[in-house]
Amino acid sequence: MARNPRYDILFEPVRIGPLTARNRFYQVPHCTGMGYDLPHSVSRMREVKAEGGWAVVNTEYNSLHWSSEDAPYRLCAMWDENDIRLQSLTAEKIHRHGALAGTELWHGGNHSPNRFSRETPISPSGSTQHAVFPLQTRAMDREDIRNLRRWQVQAAKRAMQAGFDIVYCYAGHGYLPFQFITKRWNQRTDEYGGPIENRARLLKEMIEETKEAIGHKCAVAVRLAVDELIGPAGVTAENEGREVIDYLAELPDLWDVNISYVENDSMSARFGEEGHQEKYIGFVKKLTSKPVVSVGRFTSPDTMVSMIKRGVCDFIGAARPSIADPWLPRKIDEGREEDIRECIGCNICRAHNNQGVPIRCTQNPTMGEEYRRDWHPEIVTPKRGFANDQVLVVGGGPAGLECAMILGKRGYQVALADAGRELGGRINRESRLPGLGTWGRVRDYRLGQIAKLPNVEIFLESRMDKDTILEAGYRHVILATGAAWRRDGIGHNVYFPLPGLDAANVLTPDDVMSGKQPSGSIVVYDDDQFYMAGALAERFRAAGHDVTLVTPGLDVSSWTLFTDEQFKVQTKLMKMGVNLVLAHRLEAWHGDAAAVACIYTGASRRVAGETLVTVTARQADDGLYRSLKEDAAAREAADIVTLRPIGDCDAPGAIVHATYAGHRAAREFGETIDPDQFPFKRELVFVK
Amino acid sequence: MARNPRYDILFEPVRIGPLTARNRFYQVPHCTGMGYDLPHSVSRMREVKAEGGWAVVNTEYNSLHWSSEDAPYRLCAMWDENDIRLQSLTAEKIHRHGALAGTELWHGGNHSPNRFSRETPISPSGSTQHAVFPLQTRAMDREDIRNLRRWQVQAAKRAMQAGFDIVYCYAGHGYLPFQFITKRWNQRTDEYGGPIENRARLLKEMIEETKEAIGHKCAVAVRLAVDELIGPAGVTAENEGREVIDYLAELPDLWDVNISYVENDSMSARFGEEGHQEKYIGFVKKLTSKPVVSVGRFTSPDTMVSMIKRGVCDFIGAARPSIADPWLPRKIDEGREEDIRECIGCNICRAHNNQGVPIRCTQNPTMGEEYRRDWHPEIVTPKRGFANDQVLVVGGGPAGLECAMILGKRGYQVALADAGRELGGRINRESRLPGLGTWGRVRDYRLGQIAKLPNVEIFLESRMDKDTILEAGYRHVILATGAAWRRDGIGHNVYFPLPGLDAANVLTPDDVMSGKQPSGSIVVYDDDQFYMAGALAERFRAAGHDVTLVTPGLDVSSWTLFTDEQFKVQTKLMKMGVNLVLAHRLEAWHGDAAAVACIYTGASRRVAGETLVTVTARQADDGLYRSLKEDAAAREAADIVTLRPIGDCDAPGAIVHATYAGHRAAREFGETIDPDQFPFKRELVFVK
Repeated sequence: MARNPRYDILFEPVRIGPLTARNRFYQVPHCTGMGYDLPHSVSRMREVKAEGGWAVVNTEYNSLHWSSEDAPYRLCAMWDENDIRLQSLTAEKIHRHGALAGTELWHGGNHSPNRFSRETPISPSGSTQHAVFPLQTRAMDREDIRNLRRWQVQAAKRAMQAGFDIVYCYAGHGYLPFQFITKRWNQRTDEYGGPIENRARLLKEMIEETKEAIGHKCAVAVRLAVDELIGPAGVTAENEGREVIDYLAELPDLWDVNISYVENDSMSARFGEEGHQEKYIGFVKKLTSKPVVSVGRFTSPDTMVSMIKRGVCDFIGAARPSIADPWLPRKIDEGREEDIRECIGCNICRAHNNQGVPIRCTQNPTMGEEYRRDWHPEIVTPKRGFANDQVLVVGGGPAGLECAMILGKRGYQVALADAGRELGGRINRESRLPGLGTWGRVRDYRLGQIAKLPNVEIFLESRMDKDTILEAGYRHVILATGAAWRRDGIGHNVYFPLPGLDAANVLTPDDVMSGKQPSGSIVVYDDDQFYMAGALAERFRAAGHDVTLVTPGLDVSSWTLFTDEQFKVQTKLMKMGVNLVLAHRLEAWHGDAAAVACIYTGASRRVAGETLVTVTARQADDGLYRSLKEDAAAREAADIVTLRPIGDCDAPGAIVHATYAGHRAAREFGETIDPDQFPFKRELVFVK
Repeated sequence: MARNPRYDILFEPVRIGPLTARNRFYQVPHCTGMGYDLPHSVSRMREVKAEGGWAVVNTEYNSLHWSSEDAPYRLCAMWDENDIRLQSLTAEKIHRHGALAGTELWHGGNHSPNRFSRETPISPSGSTQHAVFPLQTRAMDREDIRNLRRWQVQAAKRAMQAGFDIVYCYAGHGYLPFQFITKRWNQRTDEYGGPIENRARLLKEMIEETKEAIGHKCAVAVRLAVDELIGPAGVTAENEGREVIDYLAELPDLWDVNISYVENDSMSARFGEEGHQEKYIGFVKKLTSKPVVSVGRFTSPDTMVSMIKRGVCDFIGAARPSIADPWLPRKIDEGREEDIRECIGCNICRAHNNQGVPIRCTQNPTMGEEYRRDWHPEIVTPKRGFANDQVLVVGGGPAGLECAMILGKRGYQVALADAGRELGGRINRESRLPGLGTWGRVRDYRLGQIAKLPNVEIFLESRMDKDTILEAGYRHVILATGAAWRRDGIGHNVYFPLPGLDAANVLTPDDVMSGKQPSGSIVVYDDDQFYMAGALAERFRAAGHDVTLVTPGLDVSSWTLFTDEQFKVQTKLMKMGVNLVLAHRLEAWHGDAAAVACIYTGASRRVAGETLVTVTARQADDGLYRSLKEDAAAREAADIVTLRPIGDCDAPGAIVHATYAGHRAAREFGETIDPDQFPFKRELVFVK
């Protein structure tokens, strides 16, 4: 189809120093949890984005010297000749599709525990590490600063040799050149401390020297955080942020501006809307004639056009939207905006990088599998085995929807049956929780795609049991029947059923999301420790209830630490007046109070409430699957030749696990899968 | 020298199934934080142990199937043919020195988030993951169990092909076969649940089938946790632990028994004495004729002899003592017990594995550097550059002691000057803190070695300043002047000096360790978050003070999570009656109360006390270094050609960082070091 002319402006070429970007879509540097450990995986993943129409595709943070690394988190490195070889793979694959390749040279300063290299970390004034760690940093003397500048230039030259077009000086996200800029890390009294011209001196020198070394061929970009969101104790868009831009306005070839730290830059949808950074970075373009990149989880082409037309930025920067849909620009270019797989802002990508493993995506199950499993986000293998058979998918939640959609795209005849009146499963319930509205996109994208597939038939209000399945005549049955929240208290910290939980005033999240109204004061017990209990507590409190949240965790919604949300969740609940009882596990419900015990000492106490809501483990709804699995004779009689559980009914998980399981089952359908054969390409160290 | 006949019993050969171990020293499987990512590093490290006289050297946990992995933590894997090649490196290097090579095949069950492989985790009854994680496990059906048994056999065959002599069935540390044994994870109602014979069925089948597959050539060992230390809710040495041993007594070729989980098995010296497991595992040998291995941080040959003579075990198992001194058996064999570098039980090795990075050792700075830097724990390169020069080392703490010792062993003339009356620096102070007595071994080992080196001269009560150094006539000056605890409140959560901290009733750890007695009720403010504040609070409380510990951390001594101590530290302090104010940072001291603010909301409160002890960041004592560094003319006039700061005066850190820095400076002395050249051999993925 043809592009909507309204979006033509997004496809104008833009000059960046000596180069020209083919359009305004700019994949900013973003972490992948792959780095130099998985060079084939990361380069193939970047390639798919270039193929998807991004004008610029950047790497993740790329350590410019071994005095800065943060193993076990996975980063790129430009440490020696080997890295030129490893990274040329990425540059070459990006070039193959007409995009510019960029790389973000990085020195973390006090963000560098150097657990692998074992080098002494350095920083402007010898602070502690950013995270709690028993090794501080050395206050850089002039020799250290000279070394750093030389290392930046050496790394930039290696980047150029590896084939990169754009090379960064990186003063964002609290890293070393930024540490010089912010007063709380810079207490120097020499020419690198004091007035802002001094504090920005290192960044200025790095830009000048990088341009001198590679500027004839490469563009030199600066990534700068203009606000730390901690008020006057840090850099603000009104003061230092603006001053630095003003001071260095025409020096770099491109400004890539954002807010700090990562949890603000990549703010989840729960805490920040699309375009939430505009109020901070809006001033930048007024101070420079150089192209400006800004991010804000942009998925709407109309919003993008508005950003350009209003003069907020020249490039639409994207990290998460390019993860959820690597082909986003191409889809707009081809006039099929309705095919965009929009980022939901759940930050599951961040959560995986934050755990030191390859990133995943709730919306895009192929993320991280492009190389090792040969999965492409837009291209599926046409049907092979069982080509004439029909497949029954039972359950229209995220696993079932994804599975039916991919089977349909592969060309199989699919029947998707759901017991409810609408498809979506848990998505329908959870996207109504406070802040989680964007999660509905998981359902909406798939419904939109399935609507175009005449070979996928939908059966609503069709609850299937063993007999109906055996009678239905499908040779292949995929079960996506979901899971239910447990009612017995068993969770991460409780192993056996607890007394008193069968009372009428004890509810699970399923009860609440199905419309049961808790009454009076509420005790929310959270032994799940992800988003659910925090979201429910927020809803209850907003509705005027007294709420006490009890958890064996050390903080509220502990696992949201990984999605960069924990601090915001807890702060919000505390400010709303939710009472907290941390580090306690539930022992019993007495009808009007919970007995809870300290996880350390075992000391018991009572927490009064009129309703108890338990958010614990979940129980797979696997009865249907197991009844079919165990009855081989019945399956044979009914000519059922394959049977597979996916998603929560296999093992209850997050939505990302559900879409992945559905995708994988659809990819593997009709293929020969041997559980004894390692299932994907490995990347291993070479040994003679 | 000749072996002390008293220790002959330790060098008796012992049969293990079809094989014979040359003596009773048995390096049990232990994590390295290297795994398959660093095959050259890990194999060379194991080789050094074989060379050091261990009769058996095992690998770390070796995943038997990709349905169990726990990236980012680094493990070995026996997943396909590639792994045979990678791991044969280890087996071959161990064999080179006459030791038997063992490997611990592992399936983690609900200890397997599978963040890398993305497989559905499995467990006996579909529990949550052991750690908080949003994906649960699938309850294994009979097909899953059959698969698992087959995978164990397949992995065992690969292990045999790779050259391993001993192959494990691993039911320790809470992993999958153990999950079947313990009731809290096994609620099955089939032949794998219920009575102990059912719950041990999987382990029994795994042993039998592994023996059948490889028993003609390899020994089959079992690692079993006989007690979980949680009372009747878990396995105890009185019940299931004993029953399983009794039931399977003669089936494996060797019993490697311990207590669970890792934090109990590898208990730090602060919480467990040498041999602390005997009371749990003492019964095992009475029930089996097969050789028994037991661990307990054994470093004393007399204790080892006693263990054998009293019939507690047949092999002296060791993980940490073999890390601290890979040549421990050889030193006993050669009659030089006084050269043993004894493990101090600080668990810094565990802390690094627990962070997903290669392990380090406070006592043995070569750990993890054997391959990549060619460092050997017992062999140093003789002096090369500056061979006729004398070196002045200023400061006799752990960095200075290590540096002087290694320089001395390399043959240099060394003067070691210290301002105090005895050598040891921070070790002398910190080893007097509750539970940290073994840390004195850091000092004692080095003093013992230095005493044998006539070329190392010691100058006590010799405080050096710039002038005395310039006049002293040394061409090489290494500064190890340490660090002091800050007095201004700056730490991980405070960036600018706080008001009121100059009062007389505000003390630092240095004041307290120097003998200043705090009076009355004490507020300990901990923004260091490692061991110091917890240890001081314990001492104050034991002396009868009212103690309130305030910390911005979410728990007490947060970083001791990594040394497997956090839970024990907090439980102990709470049981002693120390008051806790968590998640609050210090704002000011008012003379009789601390003003503290919630890290989330900023809400302020007062915590009353008569003394405030601040445990925050430290300030490098680098004045001497910087004054010399900045005065190039004076150095030239004094003919000082090299100058290097090491340890805390370079960047304040833990003791492990100090010994490492001292060691490295001594290794690099007289060598050409280019800060622009990557300093060690890398292990990278092969790319064409």
